[in-house]
Parts: sequence; structure tokens; C-alpha cells
Amino acid sequence: MTVITLLTDFGLRDGYPGMMKGVIWKIAPNVQIADITHAIQAQDILQGAITLARAAAYFPPGTIHVAVVDPGVGTQRRPIGLQLGEHYFIGPDNGLFTQVYERAEAQENTIKIVHLNKTEYWLPEVSRVFQGRDIFAPTAAHLALGTRLEEMGTPIRDPVRLAIPRPEQLQGGGSQGQVIYIDHFGNLSTNMNVSQLEQAQDVIVRIKGVEIVGLVTTFGERPPGSLVALLDSSGSLAISIVNGSAAQYLEVGVGEKVEIMIVR
Amino acid sequence: MTVITLLTDFGLRDGYPGMMKGVIWKIAPNVQIADITHAIQAQDILQGAITLARAAAYFPPGTIHVAVVDPGVGTQRRPIGLQLGEHYFIGPDNGLFTQVYERAEAQENTIKIVHLNKTEYWLPEVSRVFQGRDIFAPTAAHLALGTRLEEMGTPIRDPVRLAIPRPEQLQGGGSQGQVIYIDHFGNLSTNMNVSQLEQAQDVIVRIKGVEIVGLVTTFGERPPGSLVALLDSSGSLAISIVNGSAAQYLEVGVGEKVEIMIVR
Amino acid sequence: MTVITLLTDFGLRDGYPGMMKGVIWKIAPNVQIADITHAIQAQDILQGAITLARAAAYFPPGTIHVAVVDPGVGTQRRPIGLQLGEHYFIGPDNGLFTQVYERAEAQENTIKIVHLNKTEYWLPEVSRVFQGRDIFAPTAAHLALGTRLEEMGTPIRDPVRLAIPRPEQLQGGGSQGQVIYIDHFGNLSTNMNVSQLEQAQDVIVRIKGVEIVGLVTTFGERPPGSLVALLDSSGSLAISIVNGSAAQYLEVGVGEKVEIMIVR
Repeated sequence: MTVITLLTDFGLRDGYPGMMKGVIWKIAPNVQIADITHAIQAQDILQGAITLARAAAYFPPGTIHVAVVDPGVGTQRRPIGLQLGEHYFIGPDNGLFTQVYERAEAQENTIKIVHLNKTEYWLPEVSRVFQGRDIFAPTAAHLALGTRLEEMGTPIRDPVRLAIPRPEQLQGGGSQGQVIYIDHFGNLSTNMNVSQLEQAQDVIVRIKGVEIVGLVTTFGERPPGSLVALLDSSGSLAISIVNGSAAQYLEVGVGEKVEIMIVR
Repeated sequence: MTVITLLTDFGLRDGYPGMMKGVIWKIAPNVQIADITHAIQAQDILQGAITLARAAAYFPPGTIHVAVVDPGVGTQRRPIGLQLGEHYFIGPDNGLFTQVYERAEAQENTIKIVHLNKTEYWLPEVSRVFQGRDIFAPTAAHLALGTRLEEMGTPIRDPVRLAIPRPEQLQGGGSQGQVIYIDHFGNLSTNMNVSQLEQAQDVIVRIKGVEIVGLVTTFGERPPGSLVALLDSSGSLAISIVNGSAAQYLEVGVGEKVEIMIVR
Repeated sequence: MTVITLLTDFGLRDGYPGMMKGVIWKIAPNVQIADITHAIQAQDILQGAITLARAAAYFPPGTIHVAVVDPGVGTQRRPIGLQLGEHYFIGPDNGLFTQVYERAEAQENTIKIVHLNKTEYWLPEVSRVFQGRDIFAPTAAHLALGTRLEEMGTPIRDPVRLAIPRPEQLQGGGSQGQVIYIDHFGNLSTNMNVSQLEQAQDVIVRIKGVEIVGLVTTFGERPPGSLVALLDSSGSLAISIVNGSAAQYLEVGVGEKVEIMIVR
């Protein structure tokens, strides 16, 4: 069975994701539907883009990812569909697919993008404020049934891209990046990844005036309450408190600068 | 596959909705199950009734909606099952189905209602405090398997109805309604709908001493932070802040009066 | 279709449970997946153990329960799989399965436990900090496909057990237990159960200096705001406020002492 995933900033209170499932199953009764999350901060396209990129690759080939963080709903911003390698993505053209798109480019995957403008694949009545339900959900369902992306819109090559923050080399060695994601546990995930960190023991991580010497490989290597640096489950450098919240302890948010110094 | 939906005030913390899914799949292994929401405010039957009515119609014909907001669980209040057109509804007889029932009446749909009193369709042991798990979930599963509603109970014609607030005509033209639902984004949805608002440009909306001139068709027509009035995804008049929360900005709750004046 | 359940402390914000579903469906496309909860308090193994035991039995025979509350992830603590009667459990060997295991012992069910150490059933790359995704989800999927538990690891007989608090007999009659679970509604569930409470009318329940005389059978027997004692949906003695939160009203948490006196 084809899998359709949902990622939105709709919350779980009002039944909006449920309506999208109803619309999908009305058209394509046999698909599996998985929520990735509906708790993206309202209108936070960057957080949505990062969360989507971290999760999407774990789904089966052929999965259709519907992502809706959409402050421009109902305006001129285009509804788009992307085929990136063996995965499909459906949602607003506002940068939400930047990271999955750039990964597909880096991996030289097949890339097709269409402006979804064939209204026959939408619900008959389209609200100007809930295209997740009225355009994106039915489009995903038709794709699951076998309609090709190209039939549902016009090819484009200029999707909107967000500027995803990148780490910089520091004079005198080392590099500076930033916290780009803070999870439920208060772990601070950065935009610096494993390939920059081969000599893990010989590293100093600096954040908000605090120095962490060396990396651990998992939380349990240190007693509860310890501040540690490690590679998280997305392969990124992260700063954590063992059994606690680094975000609360350090009082930092997304965007906080992080430095790595190689001290070998 | 038949779809069963769940709408409750149980929250997602304790595993109660999960238990209901287990009970359903033990009886009817091949149904699809979708959560509409489990975050109805505890014991808020009216909020449940409105949320259910907004979501239900988006599901396929034959869908079975289990709704449980049930302060009277285990008392004399009846467990009921309804067939309203092509949809089924299972839950307590406390007004939770008022709005879907009245819509079915207005649309002259088939209406059948039974008092669910045939214990052979329940779990063998019925807790006095969790009939969602012990009566409503197994009833929905048996219905999905093909048991007719009439076999599971006695026909009734007097379901409990809530008084759903209705807008009133004002002297001198215009009408007065109220906020009946506030969603996750802080949008204020009212009980006034589109048919009353054909000349959208020529309208003034008043709430808590503030006047909004004209309707927009979507958020992005105004800059972030603007207070706007528009028709929301349920077709109701709503008051919103672009990329913000009108509920926080105006400090209003459900029940707040809203006036519309036609100024043409 | 086989059912796989998920119970974690991951929260619903970051997409971690979604990734687990992706991993499962990549290996076993036709399983049903139900969330029990992802809102176990971070690292609270006891709360996880209690929630799991309350929910698991409502699922069909053959269900595979994946439970991950795992402060020791990536350390020497073992990944384990258990067959307990007709249910399977997959997760960390840290006491999370204590209560389901002890129930299986009490009911003289089949018990098999293996240390999951055959890496060919894991994802090819295993993060040291997210074994829910990389070890437990794929193991559950292979089990659903028909691989036997014994093929995926080495039999063991010494799983870690938590000390689950038990009630004590009081001198002069009666017994003392404690609050072991507080749900979304603020109901205080204790470790004292129905068999100790046959003469319900002739009972006094004491908590934090307050005495409750007699048990009710459901909330609606008393007016809103009343403090009542009753048997909850897990068959445990619980203290509740009708249409309110006993946890807030009494300002108590898990661990609060509760006494029952038989006054006949």
C-alpha cells in the first residue's frame, strides 16, 4: 500500500489533519497515512523544512509527503508537486521543500517539479484558506491512485528556496554554526555534521560562553545533569543535558551560535 | 476499507484512544481508523458537536464516526447510534450529535437513531467510566463488519439536542452572532455564514469595540499583524490576525458577540 | 493485518514516531500501526510501564507493542523482545515491561524473552541515540513479517524489573497504597484494586487529610465539583472531582499516600 505522510502547523485540536485524511481516503481508500507532525510552530517554514528533511528518507520508496506550513495560502504563491528520487512531495511553493530538494540535487536524484494548476484534481469547492484539505490532500490521493504528477500541472524549474543557514570556517581553525532545531527533549541540534568531526575526542564545543570538551557517543556515558556534545540521530552535532533539557539549562533558542575547535 | 473516526476529550497522554483502536481492530481487523481530535476541552459537548460537524462531511460515505465527550458516562444517559445520510455516528445521547443531526434534517437525508441496548455487541466487561472503549468502540467495529444499527438497539426519535447559538437580525439592518469556535491559530470562527454576506466589500464587522471594514478572501492580502475578517474553511465568518492570534490580540473567548452591518 | 503499537516519551512535535512508522512500513507494508501514547514524561520508565500494561491487553492477539522510554539508549543496556502469552513487546531492557511481564507470570502465560543482538534485523546504520527507529521499529516489522523472536536474539531469563509500589495492610484493618498514575482529566489512580474493595458502601478513603465516605460507581452520581472515590477503567481505586481535576484540587502528585478503611 502506498504511504502518504502529513506534516503541518495545524495542531491536533481542531480536526484539520483528520479532514485531510478523510479527503484522501474518499479518493484513495487503500493508502496508509502517517502523521509526521502537526506541531510545527505556526507559519515557521524553516522548522517545517528541517523536520520534513529529517523524517522523509525513513519512509518507503513511492511515499507521498504532504507538507503544509503556508502563511501565503490562497495568494499567488503556487501549489507544487515534486518528485525527488523515489519520493513525492506536495505543498505550497514557499521554501518548505528546500532541504529535500537540495539533498536530491546533491545526490543527483531524478527531479521533477510541477505547478499544480489542473483544478480537476482538487476538491470541487476550494477554500481560500485551507488548501491542505482542498488541493494538497486530493492531489496526493490522485498521485497514490496512479495519476502522474505531470498530468496534474505544468513543469517548473524555479521553486522558491529558503536560505538554510550553513556553518563557516573560522580563522585559526574550527568552524562556527548555529542551533537550527530544538526538539521535545530540549536537545540543541546544529547545522554542523559528522564529516567535520572525525576526531571526536579532540574537539571543544562552545555555546553561550560554555565549553564542552570532547564528544560522547550517547547520553548514558555521563551522569544525569551533565552537559554533553554528541552526534544526534540526524547525524548533526548536538548539545544536550543527560536526562534534562539543554535548551532550558542554557536558555538558548534557534539561531544561537555554536563553535567547534579541533584541539589535537 | 471502512473508515472509523474518533473524536474525544481524552487527550493523547494516557493511551485511551489507543485502547479504543485496539478494541476496534480486535473485532474488525481491516478498518482504517482516523483521529479527528482528542483535544476537545474536557466535558465541552458544544465544542465537540461543532468540531464533529465541521470534519465529518469530508470522510467517505459509509464512515463511522465515534464521538465521546461524555460527562454523564455510566448514568441513565443513553448510548446511541445514528445513521444520517451515508454516515454513521456512535456515542452518548447528550447533544454531541445535534449539529450533524440538524444538518441531516435540513438536507432531508435518511435519519435512523437507535438506543444501543443490546449488550452482546459490547465488550464482555463494561466499566462504568469508559464506555468509549467498552460500548462505543465495539459497536462501531460491529457496524463496520456489517451488523445493522437496528440489530444493536431500539429505534428512538427523541435524541437530546443542544441549543446551538444562532445569529439574530438587528434592528436597522445587519445581524448579531457570536464566536463559537477558536482554533489552534487563534482564529475566531462565528455562527454567521456565507449566505448572509454576499456583498463582501460593503460590510463592517464589529467585535469588542473594534470595527473591521470589508472582508478579505485570504490572510496574505494584508501584511502580517493586520486584523481581518474573512470566510474560514468551514464557510463561517471569522476574525483573524494575519500570521498571528486574534484570540490573544482581542482577548476574547467563545461567546463573544460579533456584529455585521451591511453598509452598501 | 498485524497491529504494531507505539508507546514512547518522544512527543509529537519532532516527527520521531513518524520516522518509526516509515521504517516499519518500509519492511512490512501491510501492518496497522496505532499510537498508544508519545507523551510519557521524559525518561519516566514507571509511567511508561503502567500505561503500557493498562493499554496492551485491549489489542488483538498477535499485536506487537514497541515501547521506548530509554534514558540508557546506546549504553550496555540490552535491547529485548518478549513474547508474553499472545502479545509481543519490543524495547529497552530497563524495567519498562515489568508490569506486563508480572501479569504474564501471574496468569501463567507463555513467556519467552530474547536479547536482540542479531544486527541483520536492524537498520544498516544504527544511531547511538535513537534505537527506537534503528533497532526496535525494524525488529517489530520483521516479527510482523513472520521472523520468530528466537531468530533475532539470544534467550535470556533475567530482564530488569522495576519495583512497582504495592499497597500494605494497615494495623487495625484497612490498607495503604499510593497514587501511581494521574491522567489528563486529573483523576488520581492508585495501586489498590477492586478485589480489596468488595463492600464499596462501607469504605472510607483518605488522601491528604481529606476523607471520602463510600464509593460511587460513576461520576454522574454526584454534582459537578464533588470529590468522589470510585473504581476507574483499569479496575483501580481512583479519586476524582466530578467534571474537574482532583490533582489540581488536592494539589497532589504521583506517590501521594492513600488509605482505605473498611468501616462495616
